[in-house]
Amino acid sequence: MSEASFDLALIGIGTGNPDHLTFQGAAAMRDADLIIIPRKGEDKADLADLRREICARVLEGAETRIAEFDLPKRDADGDYLAGVSDWHDAIAAVWTETVASADPAPKKVALLIWGDPSLYDSSLRIAARLDPRPSIRVIPGITALQALCAAHAIPFNDVGAPVLVTTGRRLRERGFPADADTVAVMLDGACAFQSLDPEGLMIWWGAYLGMDGEMLFSGPLAEVGPKIVAARAEAREQRGWIMDIYLIRRTVRAA
Amino acid sequence: MSEASFDLALIGIGTGNPDHLTFQGAAAMRDADLIIIPRKGEDKADLADLRREICARVLEGAETRIAEFDLPKRDADGDYLAGVSDWHDAIAAVWTETVASADPAPKKVALLIWGDPSLYDSSLRIAARLDPRPSIRVIPGITALQALCAAHAIPFNDVGAPVLVTTGRRLRERGFPADADTVAVMLDGACAFQSLDPEGLMIWWGAYLGMDGEMLFSGPLAEVGPKIVAARAEAREQRGWIMDIYLIRRTVRAA
Ligand SMILES: C[S@@+](CC[C@H](N)C(=O)[O-])C[C@H]1O[C@@H](n2cnc3c(N)ncnc32)[C@H](O)[C@@H]1O
Ligand SMILES: C[S@@+](CC[C@H](N)C(=O)[O-])C[C@H]1O[C@@H](n2cnc3c(N)ncnc32)[C@H](O)[C@@H]1O
Repeated sequence: MSEASFDLALIGIGTGNPDHLTFQGAAAMRDADLIIIPRKGEDKADLADLRREICARVLEGAETRIAEFDLPKRDADGDYLAGVSDWHDAIAAVWTETVASADPAPKKVALLIWGDPSLYDSSLRIAARLDPRPSIRVIPGITALQALCAAHAIPFNDVGAPVLVTTGRRLRERGFPADADTVAVMLDGACAFQSLDPEGLMIWWGAYLGMDGEMLFSGPLAEVGPKIVAARAEAREQRGWIMDIYLIRRTVRAA
Repeated sequence: MSEASFDLALIGIGTGNPDHLTFQGAAAMRDADLIIIPRKGEDKADLADLRREICARVLEGAETRIAEFDLPKRDADGDYLAGVSDWHDAIAAVWTETVASADPAPKKVALLIWGDPSLYDSSLRIAARLDPRPSIRVIPGITALQALCAAHAIPFNDVGAPVLVTTGRRLRERGFPADADTVAVMLDGACAFQSLDPEGLMIWWGAYLGMDGEMLFSGPLAEVGPKIVAARAEAREQRGWIMDIYLIRRTVRAA
């Protein structure tokens, strides 16, 4: 069997609300011969359902086929970055296999990416490991950062001022940034804001943004922080998983 | 005449490509009684045209009315922040007037916002000055940051690493950030990257993203920087205006 060559579209689908999809995203979905979708793996069942719902809505009357695949498990032992690299290789292999088993061979393949493909997502790096390397097209999608600001109706930045976008781990390790009075935090499994001195800080927090059960909290970190920790633990317990994100702003400028 | 009270939707429309619009954005446009659109003012004619094109596409068959208004001029003399504050008051007054002259009085008013309403945009701050204050709803839209990453098919962040989003002015004043190895720069009228030592820095630059005449450059800053400066000046001269944005990444980690 000779290696099939194909074009790959990474399509941002937003963060839970199917109406986050753009017209460009919908057109790219309909234009694809094959959309490959992770069956579950790292993803929560709700998220797999969202992908299926979007496909059902958008693909009516289109000839696009859908193929599901199982995400390989990540090896949690050993060196973290090496583990991620092996895992990305394994995913690239599964993508290749899934595409290769489609008959007739698709020319245009698409992946549906949570949020935007450029923001804390590995698909571009995995796609770069495909051999032969497909031509790659990225279609932007609404990010969790935007869903957060929209839900609270707040600006991301102060007038002309910078924002640091970072992870929970980095916030815990480095503290409040020196370069900006606003920090936006993603990928935080453990409420890293608890490691900050809350004096003079405001927080805007959201979970399940755009989805059923969306949760929002905002106010002075000293006051709202403990409420978030409690509500987050309860929601996670009830639903089995949680995705949350927040923005913290210094209201009193550091001297 | 008694003050009419209305709901206000700020709808992100993306950065030039009409297909950036989300299904949520389109639905909110059709759901509005009145969309108010700046005739020109600070905006370039191309941008006003894009708004009209989106309205023509999306509003077919809807009962939504459109009213255009003239943006007041900003007073460039005197204190910068006070000048901006006065200007925002003046815009709020024009919005109120434009809505008040619509007959019958609209209950749902919408504004079409370039990119996303939360990113370097004043509409939320202006809306907060309206009296009586409307209930405000924000609908996220694709930002220039996302259009840039998508056009270059690059990730915004390195794996698990932070990004500082900032302005040309701040980059010039503060230099490369200490907190992040990636900086994303907007609102730069004068190629502020020229103030950096280009050693070990890569740049991904884009102008007119999503629009006719989209321009892209990428590579080592030392090599590509001067090309961007020249191409930008020429494009600006020819078209009469330019909007550009870039991402710079340290490829060699600072010691
Ligand atoms: C692996 S990153 C993917 C981000 C995605 N590419 C985007 O553009 O938003 C996952 C993180 O995004 C945030 N996130 C994604 N969807 C979310 C949602 N619906 N509500 C709250 N946070 C969300 C959380 O911080 C989560 O840890
Ligand atoms: C006032 S800010 C508005 C940003 C907008 N709210 C967004 O979400 O992208 C304008 C800046 O956005 C960037 N920008 C907006 N549209 C752009 C485009 N089509 N191409 C390149 N840069 C763009 C430029 O840096 C410009 O100076």
